[in-house]
Amino acid sequence: MVKNAINREIPDNYAAQYGAFEGAWAKQPTYKTTSRQVHAIHPGDSKLVASIHEAIEKVGLKDGMTISFHHHFREGDYIMNMVLAEISKMGFKNLSIAPSSIANVHEPLIDYIKDGMITNITSSGLRDKLGAAISDGIMENPVVIRSHGGRARAIASGDIHIDVAFLGAPSCDEYGNINGSHGKAVCGSLGYAQIDAKYADKVVAITDNLVPYPNTPISIPQTDVDYVLQVDKIGDPDGIASGATRFTKNPKELIIAEYAAKVIEASNYFKQGFSFQTGSGGASLAVTRFLKKAMIDQDIKASLAIGGITQPMVDLLEAGLVDKLLDVQDFDKASAQSLRDNENHYEMDAEMYASPFSKGAVINKLDVAILSALEVDTDFNVNVMTGSDGVIRGASGGHCDTAASCKMTMIVAPLIRGRIPTIVDQVNTVITPGESVDVVVTEYGVAINPARQDLMAMFKALDVPQFTIDELRQKAYAIVGTPDPIVYTDRVVALIEYRDGTLIDVVRKPGQQND
Amino acid sequence: MVKNAINREIPDNYAAQYGAFEGAWAKQPTYKTTSRQVHAIHPGDSKLVASIHEAIEKVGLKDGMTISFHHHFREGDYIMNMVLAEISKMGFKNLSIAPSSIANVHEPLIDYIKDGMITNITSSGLRDKLGAAISDGIMENPVVIRSHGGRARAIASGDIHIDVAFLGAPSCDEYGNINGSHGKAVCGSLGYAQIDAKYADKVVAITDNLVPYPNTPISIPQTDVDYVLQVDKIGDPDGIASGATRFTKNPKELIIAEYAAKVIEASNYFKQGFSFQTGSGGASLAVTRFLKKAMIDQDIKASLAIGGITQPMVDLLEAGLVDKLLDVQDFDKASAQSLRDNENHYEMDAEMYASPFSKGAVINKLDVAILSALEVDTDFNVNVMTGSDGVIRGASGGHCDTAASCKMTMIVAPLIRGRIPTIVDQVNTVITPGESVDVVVTEYGVAINPARQDLMAMFKALDVPQFTIDELRQKAYAIVGTPDPIVYTDRVVALIEYRDGTLIDVVRKPGQQND
Repeated sequence: MVKNAINREIPDNYAAQYGAFEGAWAKQPTYKTTSRQVHAIHPGDSKLVASIHEAIEKVGLKDGMTISFHHHFREGDYIMNMVLAEISKMGFKNLSIAPSSIANVHEPLIDYIKDGMITNITSSGLRDKLGAAISDGIMENPVVIRSHGGRARAIASGDIHIDVAFLGAPSCDEYGNINGSHGKAVCGSLGYAQIDAKYADKVVAITDNLVPYPNTPISIPQTDVDYVLQVDKIGDPDGIASGATRFTKNPKELIIAEYAAKVIEASNYFKQGFSFQTGSGGASLAVTRFLKKAMIDQDIKASLAIGGITQPMVDLLEAGLVDKLLDVQDFDKASAQSLRDNENHYEMDAEMYASPFSKGAVINKLDVAILSALEVDTDFNVNVMTGSDGVIRGASGGHCDTAASCKMTMIVAPLIRGRIPTIVDQVNTVITPGESVDVVVTEYGVAINPARQDLMAMFKALDVPQFTIDELRQKAYAIVGTPDPIVYTDRVVALIEYRDGTLIDVVRKPGQQND
Repeated sequence: MVKNAINREIPDNYAAQYGAFEGAWAKQPTYKTTSRQVHAIHPGDSKLVASIHEAIEKVGLKDGMTISFHHHFREGDYIMNMVLAEISKMGFKNLSIAPSSIANVHEPLIDYIKDGMITNITSSGLRDKLGAAISDGIMENPVVIRSHGGRARAIASGDIHIDVAFLGAPSCDEYGNINGSHGKAVCGSLGYAQIDAKYADKVVAITDNLVPYPNTPISIPQTDVDYVLQVDKIGDPDGIASGATRFTKNPKELIIAEYAAKVIEASNYFKQGFSFQTGSGGASLAVTRFLKKAMIDQDIKASLAIGGITQPMVDLLEAGLVDKLLDVQDFDKASAQSLRDNENHYEMDAEMYASPFSKGAVINKLDVAILSALEVDTDFNVNVMTGSDGVIRGASGGHCDTAASCKMTMIVAPLIRGRIPTIVDQVNTVITPGESVDVVVTEYGVAINPARQDLMAMFKALDVPQFTIDELRQKAYAIVGTPDPIVYTDRVVALIEYRDGTLIDVVRKPGQQND
């Protein structure tokens, strides 16, 4: 067993294979990007195929290969299930899947894992039933959890070699020029899919909206696509744009948001031309609205807002309070529409968004980020992956990427959820190391990471209650009691890759050793 | 000596190294794209450098490396001379340069060749004094002439490995997001530069218009750029947009254009949704205008026009006669403006435009192309590279790419120029093989390639005089006399790569053997 830089125990074999986490910026590599195999398409060649079956035959899928999907359709995705059902019918075994993330709707994966069709998974996240099944140990090989930036890095560097990418294409022509802004299943940005298309040997575009050649705007160009398949429906628009963007009425979330906005306002980062990222949770969305008020009051404009884009950020753009949005994915219809219609709302791919080993990611230019947490511990480590029962149910997302890169990383989270404390002695699973977390904002007040003495000084006069992180932990425990430690077996069910490819943690199967 | 498929003599050593041309579609490879070295840029790292000197030091330039430039600034380019002057001052030797093309303004290259700083050149073209100097044998290693599509293929496949690309950037932010649509030296599309940026190990953006981060639209993203340098001027707008787009009054050109338009009209390709490419010469521009009239008269609209874009194509777009323009470079201000302002005018990179080994180039979707020629021979081979004296003065451009790929390739050229015949027994240098050329249009009438019996049948009732190519040749010789054959030495001064990388021809030094 190896202890990594934050004292997480990594089994020797995995530590040897991936390396153990040494610190957010321990690796500053120069590396060679991977290469892809290109089969030349000549005049007269058609890329159109008549069925998923034909596509699978033509790409030359073989047992043991790696296939990928994008998660821009979220709970509205039809593509992964559609493709895997056909692959299953054709009898393939021992496949690796490398979707950018996995949603509840992908529950059929459980059967494909059980019958040996899928033997390896890498993903940002695993939801509900699949997460529970993985935690229960249905896979022999642990799932590899990668952040969005880490996945882009892994693909660009060849750590993930995608043999075939199957890409849902809201708008596509017969030669494979794709965008996500038009069609029946509009998702807006295709930032995660762009990386798959760029590096995969074979790319199959699956569309329910085949348009005349040439399709523009072009998010993924014809030079990245081998085959085009037209189907009835690639996704459910309601599941795709599922983000509820109404203003939260939850009083806890409103207090947290108000506190968070006050922290930002009081910081040196809140100045003309600042930049920020917010998440899509209730408190996070509310921060954007509080921030809007402060920006108007103080006549301060932001130069840039990024991330998964939500309506409140679009509102800021349209109000002239933000100059530009850079967009790797859209959480609601308003955002997808804005990407289509507003020239200051611009698409970026996952590598440009967040890859740690790129020639410079957009998150490197961020002043402030507001991120969420399932748990934060007294070392400021954050868990967004496993529940209080130790079971996988979350997603790594861009959490550790943005936290590492921006100048002030804020975690917004309620002190307790029901009878469960959010601030704990030790998080179940570390996604983001404490060294990347600067301020934790709860409805009781904030805790500033003592490593950031500059922030401590900056926030001397802050009109928000301030505590040490341990005081917040004590408050939480005082309300709900000290949680019983989760008992785990030795069985490793998931490896948590830090964005640089080293292991920051592993997830073990909860339960007694001989379960 | 090896005779290739069109009977051109290729010295054994070069034939062994590159392969001898076997036919336009002889190679249908599956290949691995090259990889590039990426040095990670972390938060706080600045990409800004204060001088070319500093940029050259930081990229780690070494003797023997390959550096590249783009030719979107044409005769207005300041970048190549500026960079090479500093490299010369720093005393580097034995460099290879791989610009997308070379203009007259780059005459200083002659001295850098003579003093051993530059020992290898690959380019689309060589103009006037440099072309003459190369033909005269100032370089030990022959220049490698590549088409635009061939260069993109060579870069993607690693045949050209660019160590450092120096890119003129009309609009750029401090992190290297670049476009060519805004600024003082607007050039419009950056299609050729995009490929360099994508595959080079190191990329230096040189701009005279540093804008706030993030610069949009993004033609070249920050993830493709290592350093950013601000200078006073990167180019002369008058030299950049030098294309004279007025309607030619030359009666010969007008007749040729009228004939060419009639050929198109009479073809099966002239139908709703057709696609075409025209060049920037007088006759070629005039064809677009004649075509416009025919399109209006017959209520026919094109789906796509591509290529180097000129004002007449923009006029068609704005008149609703063409649905989309795909644009790899702009020849005039109107085109660059249109690219900026019209969402149906879209940028494409050189690989997407014309690479033969890509997953499908745009030229593969072309119905009709109108191309120029310095010489056409009775096998329909075309020379756009060497003059009637055998001296290099032209550019390969996208000639052989488009000719090979589109359904009907038309060459527009006067029968004679001054006392020089255009239609000859044998062209001095083959850029495009006769198999790719379908119709030759002169002011005397047209010749159809007998290999295209379908066109012969199609044009039975064509209201334009028709001749065999040999009859046209006879007419030319009857007017100006049979030209004396050029005497060449054995000294090979340039290799003419076909788009697939094989040698279709070589250029030898003109003169007596012991010159």
